[in-house]
Amino acid sequence: MDGKDPTLLEKDREEDIVSAAGPDTAETEPEIEHLDEDDRLTHEFVEAVRDAVEEGDDGRVYDLVEPLHPADIADLFELVPAEERPDLGKAIAELMTGEVITELNEHVRDELFEALSPDAVAQIAEQLETDDAVALIEDLDDEEQRAVLAELGPEDRAAIEDALSFPEESAGRLMQRDLVAVPEHITVGDLIDYLRDNGDLTTEFWEVFVVDPAHRPVGTCQLSWILRTPRNIPISDVMKRDQTLIPATLDQEEVALRFQKYALISAAVVDASGRLIGQITADDIVHIIQEEASEDALLMSGAGEGDINQPIRESYHERVRWLIANLGTALIASLIIAAFGAAIEKLVALAVLMPVVASIGGNAGTQTMAVSVRALAMNQLTQSNTVRVLWREMRVAMLNGVTVAALIGGATALIFQPMLGIVIALAVVINIITAGLAGVAVPVLFDRLDQDPAVASSVFVTMITDSMGFFAFLGLAVASGLVS
Amino acid sequence: MDGKDPTLLEKDREEDIVSAAGPDTAETEPEIEHLDEDDRLTHEFVEAVRDAVEEGDDGRVYDLVEPLHPADIADLFELVPAEERPDLGKAIAELMTGEVITELNEHVRDELFEALSPDAVAQIAEQLETDDAVALIEDLDDEEQRAVLAELGPEDRAAIEDALSFPEESAGRLMQRDLVAVPEHITVGDLIDYLRDNGDLTTEFWEVFVVDPAHRPVGTCQLSWILRTPRNIPISDVMKRDQTLIPATLDQEEVALRFQKYALISAAVVDASGRLIGQITADDIVHIIQEEASEDALLMSGAGEGDINQPIRESYHERVRWLIANLGTALIASLIIAAFGAAIEKLVALAVLMPVVASIGGNAGTQTMAVSVRALAMNQLTQSNTVRVLWREMRVAMLNGVTVAALIGGATALIFQPMLGIVIALAVVINIITAGLAGVAVPVLFDRLDQDPAVASSVFVTMITDSMGFFAFLGLAVASGLVS
Repeated sequence: MDGKDPTLLEKDREEDIVSAAGPDTAETEPEIEHLDEDDRLTHEFVEAVRDAVEEGDDGRVYDLVEPLHPADIADLFELVPAEERPDLGKAIAELMTGEVITELNEHVRDELFEALSPDAVAQIAEQLETDDAVALIEDLDDEEQRAVLAELGPEDRAAIEDALSFPEESAGRLMQRDLVAVPEHITVGDLIDYLRDNGDLTTEFWEVFVVDPAHRPVGTCQLSWILRTPRNIPISDVMKRDQTLIPATLDQEEVALRFQKYALISAAVVDASGRLIGQITADDIVHIIQEEASEDALLMSGAGEGDINQPIRESYHERVRWLIANLGTALIASLIIAAFGAAIEKLVALAVLMPVVASIGGNAGTQTMAVSVRALAMNQLTQSNTVRVLWREMRVAMLNGVTVAALIGGATALIFQPMLGIVIALAVVINIITAGLAGVAVPVLFDRLDQDPAVASSVFVTMITDSMGFFAFLGLAVASGLVS
Repeated sequence: MDGKDPTLLEKDREEDIVSAAGPDTAETEPEIEHLDEDDRLTHEFVEAVRDAVEEGDDGRVYDLVEPLHPADIADLFELVPAEERPDLGKAIAELMTGEVITELNEHVRDELFEALSPDAVAQIAEQLETDDAVALIEDLDDEEQRAVLAELGPEDRAAIEDALSFPEESAGRLMQRDLVAVPEHITVGDLIDYLRDNGDLTTEFWEVFVVDPAHRPVGTCQLSWILRTPRNIPISDVMKRDQTLIPATLDQEEVALRFQKYALISAAVVDASGRLIGQITADDIVHIIQEEASEDALLMSGAGEGDINQPIRESYHERVRWLIANLGTALIASLIIAAFGAAIEKLVALAVLMPVVASIGGNAGTQTMAVSVRALAMNQLTQSNTVRVLWREMRVAMLNGVTVAALIGGATALIFQPMLGIVIALAVVINIITAGLAGVAVPVLFDRLDQDPAVASSVFVTMITDSMGFFAFLGLAVASGLVS
């Protein structure tokens, strides 16, 4: 972290190297008993730990867990039932490093922190890099945040408070403050000497940022270029001027898209006046990309955050509102059916077949919507090609519609009567085309209104396809004189 | 690429540096006219390019496009209608570098390649790193692949053929063969001299791999550690022995999970005998993570690959089969309704309300399924916590069920009759709980059977919730004596 005692950091680094060179080579040896072929903790291992915890054999718990990578210790914590976690935590207290805490699922971590004093949380926060400390503290409620911040050293506190001043999920929250920045006029040799002489610099950097006297980035320099260049060459001859700068207020989703688009390993974060204030590295971005990309699937299905570790009450609140919204749209569909009550009484086959039309339309709408939401998220669907994509989806819908209509229409004509077959076939074509239209138009409209298209599109698309399904089928049945 | 002429690579690198230091600082200046605030090409810019292409003003097209980043040139190509792409390609032929080709959407690239000779494709492939060349060639059909490979130089051909011998979407296809590997006994100074003296080494490396005489990795060394360590220190004192090795046959999704879990920037790829054969870097992984994570949303909705650039025929084939599967499940639901035809004839309110029960159940099932599929994909849902997660989802389902049942039951009792309110309330509770069960059990079952849970879960969950919805509601209506 910023403002860390240099000797401490130097010590950290030595520890890194010593422990890496030590006898613990667990990761390179086959870990048949810990991890399965998909790199998940095996059931046998988890059960062995749980048994040892239950028996109160803390020594055995420690011996079992000690060889694990911090990320696996965090996984273990999540796999053990909530009521057994405090005992597990006690048995492996020494292994619960900042790295483990950072890797822990946010809900599991919150639960753990509730049992800890602000002082203990502050001690953990002090071990972490700024970005990880911020991620940990931003989840606490305001009062806890204040209590923890009060326990921190002044420099750590300033750094974290500064990060918390940026919007949630912005680059400013995500960035590390530790970085290597050098003036333009130095040589490669000067840079190497500077790095060797300053033990308190971070070791977590992959590029060196070259800045002007006002601390604005003018170029970046991959470490491999530095290593391959003779000492007497000026740094300004090796650096790349063409760089992607990240404004501190940029949303993390946009940050992730830039890393992806420009294949970045690290990038400079700048404040409003263009001054270099931090860096973001690709290893932080992979989490964001995973989060944002899998978020859309959860949002589209109305599952909210969709975390299996989320408290039940939160999951309930997040999901029930979409079920209630769905109830509303289903009732609109019911009104349409009710309007055709007389027709259904006369021909009960209408009641039997009407859900088919609605269901197929719903499915087709969901398909198109998923494609549109993804294209919007990936910046592939813009004003320049909206009409083209809409027309593309209409053509796919027509092909799908004709195929499905032929199948259901033919079967209905054979089982019930030819006219009903024609009616259902037409209704299916109409509904699949409506679904194609709605599946593009609804997400695009939400995007234009600066709303996340993944969040509410589903309710509207389903409403449209359900209503249109019942209306087209029952309406055509009446209009065709099938029931009169 | 492997086996590249050293002088050529040296030249490439010089060009990199010269152009980077040159006057083209497009990325650092505000690009108001090219990119909008979301880093997308503006509609105005795309239209300006299209106008210039239409007017045949190749000079203006070139001037407009020249300042763009290769990734943006690729985007421009995708945003322009297919029929205008050949003319655009002709106007900016000199700007269509390997980097642009690599960034191009696979379908747009295929279309472009169909117009090119194998010789021209081979020339492009030769410009690329092995992993990008493989990505380009693996999409071609067998005959084209052979034609292109025949045009390549022997070393490039061998490298690509070797990569193609690994399974699709495996680490072996993804890796770069260019890397820096050194023996354990050298010092930091030896390493720096080696890097300075060997102009033909790749510049795309972020860690140095330390290998034993059999070329098996024994440790990795971040470049920042090398830069900060005095020349006389042995490399074995700086390197980290604790490393994550990627087997060449590992699926890319698992590779991405390991990068994420262990926060890797690069990793060594090893063959079956443990020899170092390549490296994978985080910038390649961000694409995979994005692809795999957003793939699940598309798969769950039955949208297949779901790419807006995919040929219409392919989109049709991918989607129509899920619509037909959905037709099948809808017909099962119809059979259930048909069995209660007499009841519906007597009480048409049943027909009006039954889609509500099915729809709510379908929605609840999709929510739970999305949560389970994600937890499985993230390795969070394993044998150790399946029962716990199932129980958790049942409790959420009960809360949701009671809430929604109270709303719909109350409204139905008021509008229709109390008994019908009780029947629909019970049916909704039963169906939401069934949905919770199916939403966990179906994906977990597919996962145990080594099938991708995102692919087919949706059809089965919908079948279960639809059928149960109609059966519970109509069955309870009859059993309660509401219709008799």
